[in-house]
Amino acid sequence: MAATIGVDYGTNSVRALVVDCARGRELGACVVNYPSGHQGVLLDPRNHYLARQRPGDYVHGLEHAVRGALRQAADVHGVTGGDIVGIGVDATGSSPIPVNADNQPLGGLPPWRDNLNAQCWLWKDHTAHAEAARITATAARLRPQFIAKCGNTYSSEWFWSKIWHCLNVDPAVFDATYSWVEFADWIPALLAGVSDPRQIVRGVCAAGHKGLYCDEWGGLPDKEFLAALDPKLAALRDRLYERAHDATVSAGKLCLAWAEKLGLPAGLPVAIGELDVHYGAIGSGITDGVLVKAIGTSTCDCAVIKADQKLADIPGICGIVNGSILPGYYGLEAGQSAVGDIFKWFVEVVCRGDADTHRALTVAAAALRAGQSGLLALDWNNGNRTVLVDQLLTGLLVGQTLYSTPAEIYRALIEATAFGARAIIERLAEYGVPIKRVVCCGGIMEKNPLLAQIYADVLGCDIHLAGSSQACALGAAVGAAVVAGLGDFPAMQRRMTSLKDTVYRPAAADREVYDQLYALYRQLHDAFGGVNKAADLSRVMKDLIKLKTQRGDAGGADFF
Amino acid sequence: MAATIGVDYGTNSVRALVVDCARGRELGACVVNYPSGHQGVLLDPRNHYLARQRPGDYVHGLEHAVRGALRQAADVHGVTGGDIVGIGVDATGSSPIPVNADNQPLGGLPPWRDNLNAQCWLWKDHTAHAEAARITATAARLRPQFIAKCGNTYSSEWFWSKIWHCLNVDPAVFDATYSWVEFADWIPALLAGVSDPRQIVRGVCAAGHKGLYCDEWGGLPDKEFLAALDPKLAALRDRLYERAHDATVSAGKLCLAWAEKLGLPAGLPVAIGELDVHYGAIGSGITDGVLVKAIGTSTCDCAVIKADQKLADIPGICGIVNGSILPGYYGLEAGQSAVGDIFKWFVEVVCRGDADTHRALTVAAAALRAGQSGLLALDWNNGNRTVLVDQLLTGLLVGQTLYSTPAEIYRALIEATAFGARAIIERLAEYGVPIKRVVCCGGIMEKNPLLAQIYADVLGCDIHLAGSSQACALGAAVGAAVVAGLGDFPAMQRRMTSLKDTVYRPAAADREVYDQLYALYRQLHDAFGGVNKAADLSRVMKDLIKLKTQRGDAGGADFF
Repeated sequence: MAATIGVDYGTNSVRALVVDCARGRELGACVVNYPSGHQGVLLDPRNHYLARQRPGDYVHGLEHAVRGALRQAADVHGVTGGDIVGIGVDATGSSPIPVNADNQPLGGLPPWRDNLNAQCWLWKDHTAHAEAARITATAARLRPQFIAKCGNTYSSEWFWSKIWHCLNVDPAVFDATYSWVEFADWIPALLAGVSDPRQIVRGVCAAGHKGLYCDEWGGLPDKEFLAALDPKLAALRDRLYERAHDATVSAGKLCLAWAEKLGLPAGLPVAIGELDVHYGAIGSGITDGVLVKAIGTSTCDCAVIKADQKLADIPGICGIVNGSILPGYYGLEAGQSAVGDIFKWFVEVVCRGDADTHRALTVAAAALRAGQSGLLALDWNNGNRTVLVDQLLTGLLVGQTLYSTPAEIYRALIEATAFGARAIIERLAEYGVPIKRVVCCGGIMEKNPLLAQIYADVLGCDIHLAGSSQACALGAAVGAAVVAGLGDFPAMQRRMTSLKDTVYRPAAADREVYDQLYALYRQLHDAFGGVNKAADLSRVMKDLIKLKTQRGDAGGADFF
Repeated sequence: MAATIGVDYGTNSVRALVVDCARGRELGACVVNYPSGHQGVLLDPRNHYLARQRPGDYVHGLEHAVRGALRQAADVHGVTGGDIVGIGVDATGSSPIPVNADNQPLGGLPPWRDNLNAQCWLWKDHTAHAEAARITATAARLRPQFIAKCGNTYSSEWFWSKIWHCLNVDPAVFDATYSWVEFADWIPALLAGVSDPRQIVRGVCAAGHKGLYCDEWGGLPDKEFLAALDPKLAALRDRLYERAHDATVSAGKLCLAWAEKLGLPAGLPVAIGELDVHYGAIGSGITDGVLVKAIGTSTCDCAVIKADQKLADIPGICGIVNGSILPGYYGLEAGQSAVGDIFKWFVEVVCRGDADTHRALTVAAAALRAGQSGLLALDWNNGNRTVLVDQLLTGLLVGQTLYSTPAEIYRALIEATAFGARAIIERLAEYGVPIKRVVCCGGIMEKNPLLAQIYADVLGCDIHLAGSSQACALGAAVGAAVVAGLGDFPAMQRRMTSLKDTVYRPAAADREVYDQLYALYRQLHDAFGGVNKAADLSRVMKDLIKLKTQRGDAGGADFF
């Protein structure tokens, strides 16, 4: 039997999966929560924009998750270390880690251990929005091509914003840092025993989508541009990397130290690191015409289109990168800065509820019809990533009466995230990337059929679920199988990935109502998002009441 | 000792007060909850606009509340029935009751007992908004002067809208009805033993503010106008009344039957009925330059200005009526359709909390600074009464993040009601009715110093509290003392009313922040209220975040 290991670093935990390369069966799995901070995230109560993680948690998690998964595979299926032919890793990003010249994370070294700026700057950290705005402005002036590839707006979540913010707020940390390494690149380098940051094989995935890397302009941004931001950033460029690679390239071979720690043969090929959702897209069977949505605390959307086609830059789509997901394809990435996090906030913070509350609200919300509550929300509690690319946007709820129930609000929040998803799909289609099928991965959709049905109704297309509930880890395992030489991506996807039998199809009646609600959503979206600076919102509340009256049993059809 | 009785009919209960006419001491009090429906209100789960009450509840409450108050006055102060020199009544309105030719409410008669349309149409019933819109349009075309006096918009809450809606949806009830009597007129008529609806002494208060009555145009709307709505309304005019009166006129003398029921001397003068908040304004010491805010489930604002002054019609102010509050003054009425109801909804429905939750939220909200939450709300969960006069508006909350707490939302809702109050005061001042002092009556302000302080900061003026916590009943008792011949209103107000010692004064730092928040509130108000149909809302969320950053300890001042 040939099997590979996929290691998936999420926001709160790391999971390892042992996968049979012939049929994609999951032979063993293990999840390890990051021990530090609040559910693994280091927070600053005085600054809600801040989110960091301890790299030591990643190392701890790697060892325990892989060993746990191997132990299960051994116990249940008799898999031995010798059956394993490769290992792949995905991680959240852009999550840059400051490292010293020996590739050791600063945050694990004694002088910096208690300094939040020396830790991994987690993807959802938004402290750097002033720097992001300045990068956008500088690029617009000097290198418009840089930001044309990322929706014309550079994000506070990304590589250069974060590094520059570190330089601005904590120059001591910046000066003590030799290089910055994306989380998704750092773990494969650790496994491969790379001790010089310049030798790390960097993936084009994070580089291209988050680091302004593009072969067309010679890789990373040129020094002149970086010097226009800060001369120290220009100097840093020499300590980063010249080239980034797609997933046909291996990140290296498993080093002896980690082979021993994990009970695996030294020299195993290590796949190149990709962002979690990119390997998740592969594990969900991504190909032309398919949008893979990885729905969790936030949502990340992936699409691919053959690299031999001509593709215009797409405003508000934060990345079009050759080879970033599948070799030979442009990878496109979009997303929503909060999805599950919004539901969690409402249930746990506003309603002060727990898992039971979540279930009860879902049951009550499922009993409602589209439009019946008269409520409409914007899904911007954590900003808007696509298509407005503005982290300084916030949530909104309109239509409340004295009778609006928590279940109605909960449903309105679900609908809001579906409207946000629709805005992304419409933008892609508008610029030549038609979407025929949506495949969702991530636990929320599996657990919540209401969510899946609402998405089908709002998006007006079938919603499929990835066959594996661990699509990201599976995708990393597929990547490992490819670098192990078992086949190319299409072949290994056919063998190792699948879809669930359950398909959610749009219900005609609700689709029509959702078309109307989506039009109202767009009015709010464009008005508060700054797209329309002469907005007529005088009908919004009235149209919501009208829909409510039509859809409810309110006996009030005579009012209109 | 001379004492009078004030009877105050609120939305959920009736209270009676026995008051010493020399010093305004409360000698006895008793509250009786209406036994029917949900907290006294008959609802229709299929139509949230509907709110009715059983007139039988009023009769039941009258007997028990007055007897209870007298019993207490007897027990504690040795007051006897012979010490009572008059009785006055206030009630909610416009709450028209359909009655037969014997002045018996239809809703108490067997064939109609289970018909919601045959009951009292409670002030907050909004089922008639289509009719209201048609009355507004018809008046604008044929009799613009009618609606100029009520803010250019006739409300769904008012007399003619409700009666016409009854005719439209339930002609059987309309046809079985001989006359329609305002709740505030019907109780005094009951006490006075008036059995012919045409003999009821009607108050100008409800007539002028809610019934389009004005001496300038000969009383109620002319038949030609009413026929343009529906010929049956024109025919009804003959069965209503020719003249309405101010509070110098008595509604009659206590009849034998009710004298016996209540243990009072027959023949006592019964004051004319006024709307609850109008007597409340009198009980709170209203005079020139004072705005009395009766804050409860909703808010009603009263101001007066000497009737010898020239006063323009004020757009959005729903009534300017000669003699409606104090004889010799124009009475002006404005209001917010929900205040306490919004807090109650949030605490009880959204947070599923109780009185303890209310207290805990108040404590937590009081610890916040103005602007610190980044949240902003519109106070329209029950529509907007002043200055937009539109019941088809709804609530709105903006600025939510993943960290917004229930206490922050609760405070934002309080602030929203204060902003709504400010919009009213600014409109009055703009049209020549300057407000120098705000006096609040109603329990909410007494119980919640946070609310009072926020109002002081938002309104930028001192907030006083009425000395009596039963200002409406006290005002009715003052009215009774006047018709008993003990003195005129200014004299009896001086003797019987007072202010509490505690005064809430604006805090300079918060005033400035609230000026900024109010400017944002006005942007939302005008955009969603249809005043500005080319609104630029692109800065709203950003300005809220900016204020939040400035006001919080968010350590993020560097972002802006």
